[in-house]
Amino acid sequence: MNSSAYCIGIDIGGTYTKLGIVDSGGGIIEHFQIPTSAYKRHTDFILEVQRILTPFIDKFGKSNCLGIGVGAPNAHYYTGNIEYPVNLNWKGIIPFGNDLEQVMQLPVKITNDANAAAMGEHKLGAAQPFAHSIVITLGTGVGAGIIIQNELLLGKDGLAGELGHTIVLPGGRYHPGSGLSGTLEAYCSAPGVVRTALEKLEQVGYTSLLSQWGTDEITSKHISECAQQGDKLCLDVFEETGGLLGMAMANFAHFSSPEAFIFFGGLSGAGNLLLNPARKSMEAHLLEVYKNKIQVLPGALPESDAAILGAAALVMV
Amino acid sequence: MNSSAYCIGIDIGGTYTKLGIVDSGGGIIEHFQIPTSAYKRHTDFILEVQRILTPFIDKFGKSNCLGIGVGAPNAHYYTGNIEYPVNLNWKGIIPFGNDLEQVMQLPVKITNDANAAAMGEHKLGAAQPFAHSIVITLGTGVGAGIIIQNELLLGKDGLAGELGHTIVLPGGRYHPGSGLSGTLEAYCSAPGVVRTALEKLEQVGYTSLLSQWGTDEITSKHISECAQQGDKLCLDVFEETGGLLGMAMANFAHFSSPEAFIFFGGLSGAGNLLLNPARKSMEAHLLEVYKNKIQVLPGALPESDAAILGAAALVMV
Repeated sequence: MNSSAYCIGIDIGGTYTKLGIVDSGGGIIEHFQIPTSAYKRHTDFILEVQRILTPFIDKFGKSNCLGIGVGAPNAHYYTGNIEYPVNLNWKGIIPFGNDLEQVMQLPVKITNDANAAAMGEHKLGAAQPFAHSIVITLGTGVGAGIIIQNELLLGKDGLAGELGHTIVLPGGRYHPGSGLSGTLEAYCSAPGVVRTALEKLEQVGYTSLLSQWGTDEITSKHISECAQQGDKLCLDVFEETGGLLGMAMANFAHFSSPEAFIFFGGLSGAGNLLLNPARKSMEAHLLEVYKNKIQVLPGALPESDAAILGAAALVMV
Repeated sequence: MNSSAYCIGIDIGGTYTKLGIVDSGGGIIEHFQIPTSAYKRHTDFILEVQRILTPFIDKFGKSNCLGIGVGAPNAHYYTGNIEYPVNLNWKGIIPFGNDLEQVMQLPVKITNDANAAAMGEHKLGAAQPFAHSIVITLGTGVGAGIIIQNELLLGKDGLAGELGHTIVLPGGRYHPGSGLSGTLEAYCSAPGVVRTALEKLEQVGYTSLLSQWGTDEITSKHISECAQQGDKLCLDVFEETGGLLGMAMANFAHFSSPEAFIFFGGLSGAGNLLLNPARKSMEAHLLEVYKNKIQVLPGALPESDAAILGAAALVMV
């Protein structure tokens, strides 16, 4: 793209939406944030996006704007719809891409939020060296973007890569958002880790630094911090969570034979507390022929940047 | 390819190897079979292949032969090696492609046996209408070939699609060949189904038509036949097996968002006895957005033909 051209990247999350104006060099020149959950209707949300962006589009020139790329949960690349999102207020099939295009009068492309972030890591982050990788977000939810031969795996309808909703423990913990039980997201998301810790706090024989907080206050960050201080309960939480994550990773590896797994999102801040047991468990659940080949790495971009850049990349030419 | 051109397709299975000479129209003009397990060394096996094929290569003309395509367990597309095959006598890393090429003096291409069969179903069978499908073999083992945008998913090293070795029941039944526990293959292969039936025969309160055979004699075919006669134990075996299979299919669907699953191999002869509970379980384990979209179909080609044609397709131009 020419030097005055620019794109807009939007990363829609359950709690916050992040917007960025991305220049021709892949730099984010303006950054904004909107509280997604404050908007009961996606149409009001789109009007807020318009209100924020319009002054900058006027400033940088509408004709220089290549378009808007959007990453959103359950976003449908081919239709532009967001369909039955699990972690958003908006329900059913939402014609988000078309409505945004109509209001903004700019080309819009849309994909899964996790796919967008994976493309960011693939183009500019830790997944760059690999033609085949799986980028997993561990945050409020567990999302994934699967890169095969340097391309995003979209599947029939652009909905591939919903790895957070694969079953890791049949008959296990119920996940209300998806209506499924025993999913990866039920255990390996930030709320999943908190729930595992709360379950352990109720077990006999455990004492924990976590007891300094009320059960409503405990976050995954507290659990990481206490584990770093050697708290047995919190270390056990990461050992178990990493064990399940690693088993799921082995299953995914048997599917697409990737060179690397890249992790980002809030929970991945726990770093090796989580990734070491995950590596160990993955290796234990791999066929001989896959062992000791697959790298497990933290993402290299700040989470919001990866998603914004990946989304913007959808409309870059 | 011109009308006198031909290819050779070889499908190496744990028990038998099937060879076919395939004409320019995709017809199999000559068919052979070798007992794979009778050959302790792959080099002796290759000499037997040479002995069988040479008269026909002489007859049809060596210069008309485009090459040999091979489907074999754990075959490595890029190196031509068979690596640590689970169900073969040959152990470690076997330079099968190179050795066969040397002996036959013809171009050789090699892939996973399940991948070869999937390509056969994709090019000429039940998977033809779908750009995105997953073809699963249910036989001595459980193999798969994953078709994405009309291409075989190979992964970094050509080893993608080992879906039989994904874990469906953590801590479940041990599978000696793979060294893994609770895998799809441990339950949904022909030997897995037999083992499930034997376990049920030992449970109190079951009587079954299977009791007419010794425990060493029972095959998955007996179990199908008794289930068709309404035998409660055998119906329960398929209900449970289909339940696990369907859950695994939902996991795979969340990965690549296919339009269809196609089943073939010995156990798929049980037809809807197995596929009905599998469909039901798959739907129950899918996210809303995937429900009622994915077809579950039996393969359309005789198993050995699919594998031979798919293998031959590797060297067709």
